[in-house]
Order: sequence, then C-alpha cells, then structure tokens
Amino acid sequence: MSVIKTEPLTADAFAPFGDVLEAAGDPDLLINAGACGRWHDRARLDFGPDGRAGISVFRATPRDLPYRLDLLERHPDGSQAFIPMAQDEWLITVAPDAGGAPGPVRAFIAAPGQGVNLLRGTWHGVLTPLHAPGLFAVVDRIGSTANLREFPLDPPVTIAR
Amino acid sequence: MSVIKTEPLTADAFAPFGDVLEAAGDPDLLINAGACGRWHDRARLDFGPDGRAGISVFRATPRDLPYRLDLLERHPDGSQAFIPMAQDEWLITVAPDAGGAPGPVRAFIAAPGQGVNLLRGTWHGVLTPLHAPGLFAVVDRIGSTANLREFPLDPPVTIAR
Repeated sequence: MSVIKTEPLTADAFAPFGDVLEAAGDPDLLINAGACGRWHDRARLDFGPDGRAGISVFRATPRDLPYRLDLLERHPDGSQAFIPMAQDEWLITVAPDAGGAPGPVRAFIAAPGQGVNLLRGTWHGVLTPLHAPGLFAVVDRIGSTANLREFPLDPPVTIAR
Repeated sequence: MSVIKTEPLTADAFAPFGDVLEAAGDPDLLINAGACGRWHDRARLDFGPDGRAGISVFRATPRDLPYRLDLLERHPDGSQAFIPMAQDEWLITVAPDAGGAPGPVRAFIAAPGQGVNLLRGTWHGVLTPLHAPGLFAVVDRIGSTANLREFPLDPPVTIAR
C-alpha cells in the first residue's frame, strides 16, 4: 500500500483546496476596546444559487496514525468548513480533481486552533480527528440535493507522519 | 452594583436569545459508515436581504468572575454565532429588548463543547472567554452596514456565580 506522509497545515499549501481558519499573524481589526482581535471573513464560502448556509455539529470517532484511507468524497454544490471545538491536532486529507476523479492525495495535520474551509467540489476524506472528543462545528450548504460524490480508493493508501 | 447570578446554558433557557450549538442527545443522522454523528442545521442564521455569511476568527482576552458588565451591543442586520475552539467554559451575557433598550440582563455559563448563535438583534455583551486561548470561530453577517448598536449600562452590573 502506498504511503503518504503528512504535512503541516499552512494557508499557502492548502490554498488550492480551501482556507485555513486560524488566528495567525496580526488580526485584521481590534474590537471591544482592544480586548478582541478579529481575523475577518477568512473563508471562501459558496452555497450555490439554491443553497443556504447552515451550522451543524459533528462528533467523530478519533483515528490513529498510520491511517488507512479508502474513500474520498466531494460536495459539488457547496463549500464545507470544519471548525474544531477542542485544542487538538486533527488530520485532513484532500486531493486535486483530475477529470472527475481524485488526483494525488495530500494529508495535512491541523495544529490546535486551526480549522479549514473546503472549496466547493474539493475531494476530501471523511472527518478524522486524532483525539477525543472529536467535536467540530461544520458550516456547509443546506439544500435539497444530495450534494455528495464518493470515490473509493482501490487500493487504499496509508497516511503516516 | 446589582449582582446577576450565572445560569447553566441550556437550549430551552437560551431559546429567546438564540441557539445552543452542541452535540447533545442523539445525533440527527449518522454519517461516514457510522463513525460520525451529525447534529444537523442547528442555527437560525439570518443575514438579511443584503448580507452574506462569513466565517471570522476571534481571539479575546480571558476574563474572571465576578465580571463587571458595562456595555451591551446588538447587530440589527444579522445573526452572530460564537463557536469556541477550545474545551473551556465561557460566559455569555444577553438581554431581551425592551423598547429599543436592553431589559433585564441574564448570564449563562457555556460548558465545554457549547457554542451559541445569537438571533439577529439580540442584546449581548462582548465576547467573554474565561480561559486562554479565548479562541472562537464567528459566523456572522458580512455586509456594507455598520450593523452595530451599543448601549452603555449605567450603572454597570456584576456577573457572579
């Protein structure tokens, strides 16, 4: 089984796939008499012409590395943001599109305090926390379509540090 | 100075002010072959006719209890959700509207894993984490208006457990 090494999650490396949501660098503005920094409007949200934004809560089973990745999915009708509700590392796997199928998989380790927003249509693995409680807020499209494509990886790949 | 005692944050108690975002009770659906619960579409989002959803990151100075509350604010043009990115308690203060000014203040302690979505126009205090890092994702209205009203509390009130 081929092995894919994890990379640190950085805004530059992740830009083709989406946005990193974090308090990095100086805030865009200071509010509340200086008591709060605001990193403003950091996600390229896209819910399509017939969708709307929703906030859901996900709680997923923590996984271990090395991790066997056997499925990618994507949401053709909208972006999807994952906001960790705990200060833990977590794993995110993505791939560029190559003619309707995923291209080479990349794996990122999000540091504590880092969320992501996946651009509409980005191939990605299912939510993979590395620690309990595995709790995330998810901002994605609410609409009437299934908004899901799945692509089994055969053979699977191994994600390792 | 009058003293307001904190209450635990529950969906029922908070309903007039907004939504509690949490993985409480059974999930609305199981996804990812059963590895993830989804508590679906839990926020009454409202960005008005001319606004859109945005995700920002806030980092605020932690406060202590008792806490002196001397200002409430509200956003007339949109809802505002606060999603804690750490497993810590935090404080949220709100008030009903009473003819354009805040009515009696209520104070809630959010447990670890609880976020909130404030309904459009809800009077509330500024973001008040009780622990470092004081990091939150905020889903609120992006638009061209100031979308802010402030109301100084004179005299201030004290929030205490």
